[in-house]
Amino acid sequence: MNVSPVADWWGTAVSRIEPDVVELRGTPVEDLIGAIGFGSMIWLMLRGERPDERQAALLEAALVAGVDHGPHAPSIAIARMAVTCGVGLNNAMASAINTLGDSHGGAGQDCVVLLDEVVTRSAGSAGPGPAAADVVAAWRTRGIRYFPGFGHRFHTRDPRRDPLLRLVAAAATDHVVPGDHLRAALAVEEVLNRGRSRPVPMNIDGATAVIYAELGFPAPLARGLFVLSRSVGILAHAWEEIGQGRRNKGPIPPSVRPTYLG
Amino acid sequence: MNVSPVADWWGTAVSRIEPDVVELRGTPVEDLIGAIGFGSMIWLMLRGERPDERQAALLEAALVAGVDHGPHAPSIAIARMAVTCGVGLNNAMASAINTLGDSHGGAGQDCVVLLDEVVTRSAGSAGPGPAAADVVAAWRTRGIRYFPGFGHRFHTRDPRRDPLLRLVAAAATDHVVPGDHLRAALAVEEVLNRGRSRPVPMNIDGATAVIYAELGFPAPLARGLFVLSRSVGILAHAWEEIGQGRRNKGPIPPSVRPTYLG
Amino acid sequence: MNVSPVADWWGTAVSRIEPDVVELRGTPVEDLIGAIGFGSMIWLMLRGERPDERQAALLEAALVAGVDHGPHAPSIAIARMAVTCGVGLNNAMASAINTLGDSHGGAGQDCVVLLDEVVTRSAGSAGPGPAAADVVAAWRTRGIRYFPGFGHRFHTRDPRRDPLLRLVAAAATDHVVPGDHLRAALAVEEVLNRGRSRPVPMNIDGATAVIYAELGFPAPLARGLFVLSRSVGILAHAWEEIGQGRRNKGPIPPSVRPTYLG
Amino acid sequence: MNVSPVADWWGTAVSRIEPDVVELRGTPVEDLIGAIGFGSMIWLMLRGERPDERQAALLEAALVAGVDHGPHAPSIAIARMAVTCGVGLNNAMASAINTLGDSHGGAGQDCVVLLDEVVTRSAGSAGPGPAAADVVAAWRTRGIRYFPGFGHRFHTRDPRRDPLLRLVAAAATDHVVPGDHLRAALAVEEVLNRGRSRPVPMNIDGATAVIYAELGFPAPLARGLFVLSRSVGILAHAWEEIGQGRRNKGPIPPSVRPTYLG
Repeated sequence: MNVSPVADWWGTAVSRIEPDVVELRGTPVEDLIGAIGFGSMIWLMLRGERPDERQAALLEAALVAGVDHGPHAPSIAIARMAVTCGVGLNNAMASAINTLGDSHGGAGQDCVVLLDEVVTRSAGSAGPGPAAADVVAAWRTRGIRYFPGFGHRFHTRDPRRDPLLRLVAAAATDHVVPGDHLRAALAVEEVLNRGRSRPVPMNIDGATAVIYAELGFPAPLARGLFVLSRSVGILAHAWEEIGQGRRNKGPIPPSVRPTYLG
Repeated sequence: MNVSPVADWWGTAVSRIEPDVVELRGTPVEDLIGAIGFGSMIWLMLRGERPDERQAALLEAALVAGVDHGPHAPSIAIARMAVTCGVGLNNAMASAINTLGDSHGGAGQDCVVLLDEVVTRSAGSAGPGPAAADVVAAWRTRGIRYFPGFGHRFHTRDPRRDPLLRLVAAAATDHVVPGDHLRAALAVEEVLNRGRSRPVPMNIDGATAVIYAELGFPAPLARGLFVLSRSVGILAHAWEEIGQGRRNKGPIPPSVRPTYLG
Repeated sequence: MNVSPVADWWGTAVSRIEPDVVELRGTPVEDLIGAIGFGSMIWLMLRGERPDERQAALLEAALVAGVDHGPHAPSIAIARMAVTCGVGLNNAMASAINTLGDSHGGAGQDCVVLLDEVVTRSAGSAGPGPAAADVVAAWRTRGIRYFPGFGHRFHTRDPRRDPLLRLVAAAATDHVVPGDHLRAALAVEEVLNRGRSRPVPMNIDGATAVIYAELGFPAPLARGLFVLSRSVGILAHAWEEIGQGRRNKGPIPPSVRPTYLG
Repeated sequence: MNVSPVADWWGTAVSRIEPDVVELRGTPVEDLIGAIGFGSMIWLMLRGERPDERQAALLEAALVAGVDHGPHAPSIAIARMAVTCGVGLNNAMASAINTLGDSHGGAGQDCVVLLDEVVTRSAGSAGPGPAAADVVAAWRTRGIRYFPGFGHRFHTRDPRRDPLLRLVAAAATDHVVPGDHLRAALAVEEVLNRGRSRPVPMNIDGATAVIYAELGFPAPLARGLFVLSRSVGILAHAWEEIGQGRRNKGPIPPSVRPTYLG
């Protein structure tokens, strides 16, 4: 056996690393440093090409919107508790990021799938309304109770929804993005809210899923991008917690005893 | 007992979340979305204030520089293997980020500590040279073999070093940053390379530590910022690996048998 | 608001912790220490009651069987790489355990689901054969290519299969366990191997799933128990790696360059 | 380059895996299944040899003692929150285990180091008392406030202390273990409690560290063994939480708002 199977096993088009050479997506790193913003770099690394300025700005708006939702979010609370346990900041961040699963942030991914279905089914139609109704009905038949990207325990109207949708609407008007996933999302929202007293607003996963999908990111990357975004809040909270100086912080003060259910 | 101890237990100045309200560092999120870049948002979340444009650009340059160093890096390899094991992208990222410890990326933190020592000790001196020599000697006495931020297994001259240092030098010239940590780092590098045939170049942890320290970030955040940066490469590699379709990928092809040492 | 919602939020029947009191599943810890084996303690904590001696021995046999499958397994390789990166042993173990997902050890869980289906469908029949054929056909229709608990890249006949099945067969003969999941598993194995030249043997996930299901553990705990088992190998390998003294160990030696696919 | 560097890179004495062969620490796995208890298997994997019955029982007593300390412990709370976020049980366990750091369970490791120092310094003395006083004074000079293995927020006398120490004392009487680390621990406890009104009792990390050290495990494995032990409670709590059916469980009920400190 020669060495090539081992070299191939780790083959990659993301980067080429040789002595004194670091090329990222085909460009020497020295031509990127200082020449490209962080948002554009994220795009380049994930897709192998660079966005234009409007695309990059839209991506950054979505990344900005998702950074934090306070200590009620399990991921944020976990980061704060973890960092008091004598582990590194990176470890605390890892324990937190690890929980951005199917129902906590990972919903963006499923929302893109949902919107893709509506977009596909409404191809050739006058609007996405009927397709949205069909898709929602089909998902309900499959037992879906929570529609990914819609509904919030706290907010009757998520304050991040409108500014994100305004940006993507403007981008669609200017042909920066097609606009089809935006229209699909609004149609789904309308279907979900029909005849309800307590609204089911599009949430942060939904509004950012619209942007990621409009920009051409495949569904799984909606979760990946959310991780990059929420990591900022996770780090900020872990860092604040370090400053508060607690040690082995539990979820409730020592004086409160968990109810014994045995 | 009333409820306030519980509310205080989770008290935070990072964000205020109320029904239909998301305030981040005192600003409603709707005033941030579309109005602030991702790099500036990172700064705001960590420090509670916004950077000016030059500061933000310098921060983004450091974040861009550190995104990836290929599959030889344990963190990148771990992300790629993890994502083939039937877990989510966020889980694969967490397993990888978790390894950005004291010797793998966490070195930026220790490098800031090192540079802080040189800066403090050289206060009032003509230059940082003698202080750098003293500090290096003191660390060696304490048994330090690897100086954090210096030396690389691959590179004789890390290609990320020069462009990063050029940017920070220009920022110092324009009084965007003080320049003292840059001078300290160059002095340490000179001391470490005295009389050596194989050079010990400032590496990515070192060059970015200079920037983070010049911008006023405390040492532990050098590690935190590196996590944000490297997460991009971790995600890009995990995503590429998904596309390659392997299942339960090990570190070497199945045909290669680990040597039995028993 | 009084405090009880907070106390209830963390209510548990697993343990009662008061000053100078530690009760686990209703028993003071001081009555367990030295009085109960580790395997029985695992059972007690998960189910709230103690096993008899034969049940405990069967559980321990399954736990022993799964501890390790060498550095080709992503989880083992990850533990070994992680521990060279300047993080704690617990962090290295976490990065590894995190990858015991749907396709890497988590398969035990799906295998219990598969066997449960066969057992349910064959109720009242002379044997599980026809039910096994029906269930396998139904899963294939749903696109299942890899049957959880069956097949192995390395082994034509997994050496852990026979001793585990012998133990559970003996336990069934002695009415320690019902034996229905064992019969279901053998029937599935027979169906999967019909007309194949390369065999699809029951693997460690399958053989241990039989035991866990026979002992009455619900499907998700098959994954949980596998984590407890494999953690032993993960720890042993991480510890050996520490002794080898590498630093930031990658998946391949520095001299081997990943193939550039760009 | 031939293949051997790659094979050597993953060389191990823990296991030998060939087609149809699984050898663990030199023994075919089929000779271990059903023939060795889980506690003895842990010992074998970590040390390459098997314990006798008394040694194995003492190890299992320590493993049993540490399984759980309720939802106040960050690790337990994290497991419970994580499992509600749409990730696998193994992921929830990983996020939790990841926090068993220097101050949360990892203390056992530092306690062994402390006791080793006392044992070494008291060699040839009549008893460990003076050495314990010297070592405690030296650690205090180095700024140590919390002595690893001693003191508890909840318990004035940890209920796990006495039964563990009784077992190790009996083992020392019967020459199963030397007894020197037990004597060192009691001497340290006495020094720490001199002139204090609020006692600083030996805690679970301390009492189990005594056992691990008496059995000859090196200090870092005290942390590793604690991980294996606490993983049981982590799994039990995660599993109970799944049964309670919450979704994205935060640290406090939605009705309690974190105090805004901005």
